[in-house]
Amino acid sequence: MAVARPENGGCGALRRFVLKLLFSFLTYFPAKPTMCQLLGMNANTPTDVTFSFTGFAQRAGNTADHSDGWGIAFFEDKGLRHFVDHQRAVDSPVAELIRRYPIQSRNVIAHIRKATQGSVSLQNCHPFMRELWGRYWVFAHNGDLKDFRPRLHSHFHPVGTTDSEHAFCWIMQELAKSHAGVPSIPELTITLRELAAQIAPHGTFNFLLSNGQALWAHASTQLYYIERRHPFSQAKLCDEDLRIDFSAHTTPQDRVAVVVTAPLTSDEQWTAFQSGELRVFVDGTCATP
Amino acid sequence: MAVARPENGGCGALRRFVLKLLFSFLTYFPAKPTMCQLLGMNANTPTDVTFSFTGFAQRAGNTADHSDGWGIAFFEDKGLRHFVDHQRAVDSPVAELIRRYPIQSRNVIAHIRKATQGSVSLQNCHPFMRELWGRYWVFAHNGDLKDFRPRLHSHFHPVGTTDSEHAFCWIMQELAKSHAGVPSIPELTITLRELAAQIAPHGTFNFLLSNGQALWAHASTQLYYIERRHPFSQAKLCDEDLRIDFSAHTTPQDRVAVVVTAPLTSDEQWTAFQSGELRVFVDGTCATP
Repeated sequence: MAVARPENGGCGALRRFVLKLLFSFLTYFPAKPTMCQLLGMNANTPTDVTFSFTGFAQRAGNTADHSDGWGIAFFEDKGLRHFVDHQRAVDSPVAELIRRYPIQSRNVIAHIRKATQGSVSLQNCHPFMRELWGRYWVFAHNGDLKDFRPRLHSHFHPVGTTDSEHAFCWIMQELAKSHAGVPSIPELTITLRELAAQIAPHGTFNFLLSNGQALWAHASTQLYYIERRHPFSQAKLCDEDLRIDFSAHTTPQDRVAVVVTAPLTSDEQWTAFQSGELRVFVDGTCATP
Repeated sequence: MAVARPENGGCGALRRFVLKLLFSFLTYFPAKPTMCQLLGMNANTPTDVTFSFTGFAQRAGNTADHSDGWGIAFFEDKGLRHFVDHQRAVDSPVAELIRRYPIQSRNVIAHIRKATQGSVSLQNCHPFMRELWGRYWVFAHNGDLKDFRPRLHSHFHPVGTTDSEHAFCWIMQELAKSHAGVPSIPELTITLRELAAQIAPHGTFNFLLSNGQALWAHASTQLYYIERRHPFSQAKLCDEDLRIDFSAHTTPQDRVAVVVTAPLTSDEQWTAFQSGELRVFVDGTCATP
């Protein structure tokens, strides 16, 4: 979906000033660790994530301080485009490409990192990727799992040093043990709910996972989602002075779900996840019973 | 290494015209399937591959017809940047980023694809990536393995439909069976030589493989390499009217090895691999006994 800059930028400048002031205040008197931020998209037709990513990337140094690397993964059928960078997303040349080049995908996972465990390095950037049953699996985590280091006795091992990648490898290991091949989406949802419940008591565990067929999202503390469908309306980003008229870029059949750590737009109704909730998004809609 | 455009472009225009004429002739009267092209770099210090990639990418539609997708992987320590695109590298926005953004790496593998098996799609683009023993492994193949479909009974399975990815999964499976953890480079070279000898009789098997510590290259029909070290000289691309003075961008300690399907420069001495030869490059030099 292409985006349009507002004709009057004055309000935006004021807004950015206020946001920066607020941000400076919060970082000077931090209430709690800010950790990472997540963005996921699931759609029934290949859709670009340019609008959402533009606002999201502002949190990597402008409207928030998640500046220890970032990454994004786009499924195209079973194929995957996987971009990671240990620079800040606001000034990374790779992030600039993503904002300008409308890659069409039905499942996207993005992450901007505020390092809590593991150094600032490329191998510690989310999302992480592994192959299982002839499908790529992509995982990004917001949170902290201080004492979760289960034994990894199978073929999945972390390349970096984060608690997040360790948890992902364990999930992959347990999925491989639980099913002989790619199970149905409802079956996978049941297994993932069981696995998430085992990890969540060890800390904060908000995560996004996709295999290109669906998007799974688990909330421990903070996650929101929105489903956009006909009739489409306008929306305005919270983090940048940018608005879009979705109706100009969609057909009545299009459905898009977006999951994010904190609402991306100021004039849409976002639904908060309950703590401990795992939802699955298929064809642009929440398919969780 | 930054590159300089020549001041006089007239000769280049003539050269491009002659190359295109030759290319049109070859595609009108094809002598044999052209298949894919490989590019690998191994260096003792983080080095960008901009110069080599600029010439290499011209083969994806301009000076050759390898236009069914492309990909490139850069190791940074144990981390990996992995870019694939099923568009032609000459006009892909992602390839344009790679030509302009000098990513520094000690091990790079690139591939431009002329589809012989498997459809033109993202999941069939090389290089392929898997994790084993907590390290990423990257593989690209030039050739055709018509009847090589060994049983994959372990945890590595192709996502796409190419013979190349099947062979890579088999190599990963056999490496995992042969060693308990990441072996030394000489040990890995011995195992890879044994595995390559089992695959090579099934067709054409030129490949590049790296785990970020070394670059392995196997030639079945066609592969060349060069080692650049002090004193550095100038070089001119074969595929584009572009030259570089390496001495202006290097220190006396720098060493860089480049492996490619066909020589990239017209004024350097490239060494041809023998058929069946597997070489390993470490710290910018060929370490094969």
